Amino acid sequence: MQFSGSHILSVQQFERDDVERIFSVADRMQPYAHRRRVTGVLDGAILGSMFFEPSTRTRVSFGSAFNLLGGEVRETTGFENSAIAKGESLYDTARVLSGYSDVIAMRHPEVGSVGEFAAASRVPVINGGDGSNEHPSQALLDLYTIRSEIAASGRTIDQLRIAMVGDLRYGRTVHSLCKLLCAFKGVQIVLVAPQALQMPPEIVESLRSTGHKVLESDRLEESIAHVDIVYSTRIQEERFSSQEEADLYRGRFRLNQSIYTHHCEPNTVIMHPLPRDSREHARELDDDLNDNPNLAIFRQADNGILVRMALFALILDVVDQVDKHARDVNWYTGGRF
Amino acid sequence: MQFSGSHILSVQQFERDDVERIFSVADRMQPYAHRRRVTGVLDGAILGSMFFEPSTRTRVSFGSAFNLLGGEVRETTGFENSAIAKGESLYDTARVLSGYSDVIAMRHPEVGSVGEFAAASRVPVINGGDGSNEHPSQALLDLYTIRSEIAASGRTIDQLRIAMVGDLRYGRTVHSLCKLLCAFKGVQIVLVAPQALQMPPEIVESLRSTGHKVLESDRLEESIAHVDIVYSTRIQEERFSSQEEADLYRGRFRLNQSIYTHHCEPNTVIMHPLPRDSREHARELDDDLNDNPNLAIFRQADNGILVRMALFALILDVVDQVDKHARDVNWYTGGRF
Amino acid sequence: MQFSGSHILSVQQFERDDVERIFSVADRMQPYAHRRRVTGVLDGAILGSMFFEPSTRTRVSFGSAFNLLGGEVRETTGFENSAIAKGESLYDTARVLSGYSDVIAMRHPEVGSVGEFAAASRVPVINGGDGSNEHPSQALLDLYTIRSEIAASGRTIDQLRIAMVGDLRYGRTVHSLCKLLCAFKGVQIVLVAPQALQMPPEIVESLRSTGHKVLESDRLEESIAHVDIVYSTRIQEERFSSQEEADLYRGRFRLNQSIYTHHCEPNTVIMHPLPRDSREHARELDDDLNDNPNLAIFRQADNGILVRMALFALILDVVDQVDKHARDVNWYTGGRF
Repeated sequence: MQFSGSHILSVQQFERDDVERIFSVADRMQPYAHRRRVTGVLDGAILGSMFFEPSTRTRVSFGSAFNLLGGEVRETTGFENSAIAKGESLYDTARVLSGYSDVIAMRHPEVGSVGEFAAASRVPVINGGDGSNEHPSQALLDLYTIRSEIAASGRTIDQLRIAMVGDLRYGRTVHSLCKLLCAFKGVQIVLVAPQALQMPPEIVESLRSTGHKVLESDRLEESIAHVDIVYSTRIQEERFSSQEEADLYRGRFRLNQSIYTHHCEPNTVIMHPLPRDSREHARELDDDLNDNPNLAIFRQADNGILVRMALFALILDVVDQVDKHARDVNWYTGGRF
Repeated sequence: MQFSGSHILSVQQFERDDVERIFSVADRMQPYAHRRRVTGVLDGAILGSMFFEPSTRTRVSFGSAFNLLGGEVRETTGFENSAIAKGESLYDTARVLSGYSDVIAMRHPEVGSVGEFAAASRVPVINGGDGSNEHPSQALLDLYTIRSEIAASGRTIDQLRIAMVGDLRYGRTVHSLCKLLCAFKGVQIVLVAPQALQMPPEIVESLRSTGHKVLESDRLEESIAHVDIVYSTRIQEERFSSQEEADLYRGRFRLNQSIYTHHCEPNTVIMHPLPRDSREHARELDDDLNDNPNLAIFRQADNGILVRMALFALILDVVDQVDKHARDVNWYTGGRF
Repeated sequence: MQFSGSHILSVQQFERDDVERIFSVADRMQPYAHRRRVTGVLDGAILGSMFFEPSTRTRVSFGSAFNLLGGEVRETTGFENSAIAKGESLYDTARVLSGYSDVIAMRHPEVGSVGEFAAASRVPVINGGDGSNEHPSQALLDLYTIRSEIAASGRTIDQLRIAMVGDLRYGRTVHSLCKLLCAFKGVQIVLVAPQALQMPPEIVESLRSTGHKVLESDRLEESIAHVDIVYSTRIQEERFSSQEEADLYRGRFRLNQSIYTHHCEPNTVIMHPLPRDSREHARELDDDLNDNPNLAIFRQADNGILVRMALFALILDVVDQVDKHARDVNWYTGGRF
């Protein structure tokens, strides 16, 4: 695809080449994200950050990524007080607000809303989540993390072995990740979920028709024995159709250090889209994993900065200028990364 | 007036020369607002943006205008949690907060509050709306839009023919626009409103005493037949004194493409302060006007950036330095303008 | 202490040398805070501003201080919608959010929360208030103000005579100020409060064991007769154990110009942590003091900028670079300071 000036609305718009291009640019953003270098390539540019639904990490990650390229951020959060609540159409909102910035990152609770907004916008729009539909930068940072984490073992996304665990029926992130994986080859996927929360059949079908090997299971321990990645997600008990089913499955998809040690291959990487629920009744990833060096969940969050910097640089067409506007960081950075 | 260091509180503080000076500076901001050039003239300056009442477009427009001049923005929104709610006087709030920025843009629900704040502030304050009272940058951007839109036909604000439509009794924007028009000559104004929502008599009187020709009407079609500008505003049905009156007028002030084609002169410009209400019961400007090139409502919103940049440049006295701190834009901007 | 890379969580972490180092750096920030010079020393750095409890002045003061050093600010406010509300641990929040900025300023309603957050953070954290516990930058700006205000009379913090008035039992600011004073010598402190709201005995004890002279009183007039500083705080009537006690003390701790004239030495300085309550039933500092040149409450608020700039410069280790990245201000600044 041509990135320059494009909206980023769905993972479905990417070919394999596009994904690899994004990842290659993300790699080049490391000196900036890791605070060794500072670039002012987007000095003077404005990101319109519009989160019509609460979000801290995604909102701040987009904003910081834009700041790290030298640009400014103008934020709008909340919904109830906006002009939309006074009957303004998304068309009007988009026509007006797109006159105030150079690129927009937007989250909105309604499926399709960000696409509708983008159609009327005069500047590129990145979908930061439209209800249960799409959140493409999350899927990209997940896949980028997989690629980074398994590189040390000499493995690649082609031939990847991954277990996805938890609520696979409603989890937007695992759906998008599966769609992205369809651009690659020879992936083995174990889908570990209670029956009522298994992956939608059409996604399983598209994975299989790509040639990937897909297994479904409702047992955690045996499913994570021979994989490179365990990708865990949160299960909300209210998703179950009955209390009996909730009781049946309660706690069966929780990973902790003991299970990891007994069942996983060495260096199996643990991922999670975050936030993880640390309350006693939840704990899909136990706190006792915090010292496990293969717990990649915070590196995964960090990678969001790299991927979002890459998207901004690509759609604003400044990839080759980033290094030209750079200098060394001149303040204390300790040993953060 | 002397702009340097002045508060901008009311349209009444402007003579004709002042308005023309603002518009002339606004013209010079076009390369920056239209993303061909970037200036860092206010690099290091801070705008305190204080919106004690919800606003998206005005708040973001002020902020982006300041960013486009190279400055930073520190925002405060909301009211209920502020120190004011703990019994702090506006005097104290102003004395404290004016120590944190170089200029302040403020909205507050109470009439006169921004002026009271400004009296105690140590930095210039721009009124972004104080209840039903004043919103001078909106009036300036409206008049600037009129001037720009009719220039192509060789017309000027002197001798302007304009119809104002809708709620003229409570509409802050039309009141301020009328006051600004009093600085010009030979204007013909048709005031189109239900009787209960007609323009306050003192404003009509001041227009007439300036020598302007004012007609009042409650019929849309004949009133828009020979004007350069149709300026439409929203009518809220709860403004009517009785349901009978609401029923009587419902829909009679809505403009759509068919009415436009049958009644307006070619190139009659359509304006609206926005947001327009696109819900079925409202629709003061129908969506079928969206492809009409004379629908100027989004250019009008864009002009808010130009006018607010001009106000900042004037009161901070950097007009002649803007171009000296400028360079070409180095990122993708497409064909936005 | 070693400032570079350190968290600022409590006044207890400072020795006298540390306090003097901070004040010396704060002095050097004056040309920037007073808008004569602009520095870009932190150009490219990001402050994560996280206020999980409402605050205008502290939040904006931190943000402006960082902007004045050339850095960017990414803000998060509010609590109810955050990931923490979805069961995320402070550990996870800290690990994630500390990847998005170079330094964090944080307020949180729970005692100890900011310290817990800091322990997991990968970047330095400044405590902007954790419940009733600590708010070290407020104590530092208070003491910095004392030092500045009495310097003209040739006096120093050693040998200071100060009256603290109002709610000394629950007032976080006076507690922290007393702890800081323990690093200095020969201070005379009059604690003026209703009996039920007197200073906690352990704080009085630590002042006395340092060698300071401490008097307790419940009478304002005689207590402020021979002091350099009157530090007033707000009394909330609901703090009293009975209505009788509230009635007994109502209005007895209010300072106004008449009391000041009759009882204070010339040039006695009046301070207050703000906001002061200007409603009729409160008025701990009467509005008729506003023209008294010794009312230092707004200079005190201004000094917050200096002290916070100093803290940022110290923990990011750029003190000696600030002037190297500086130039003169090029916009109108009037006679603000």
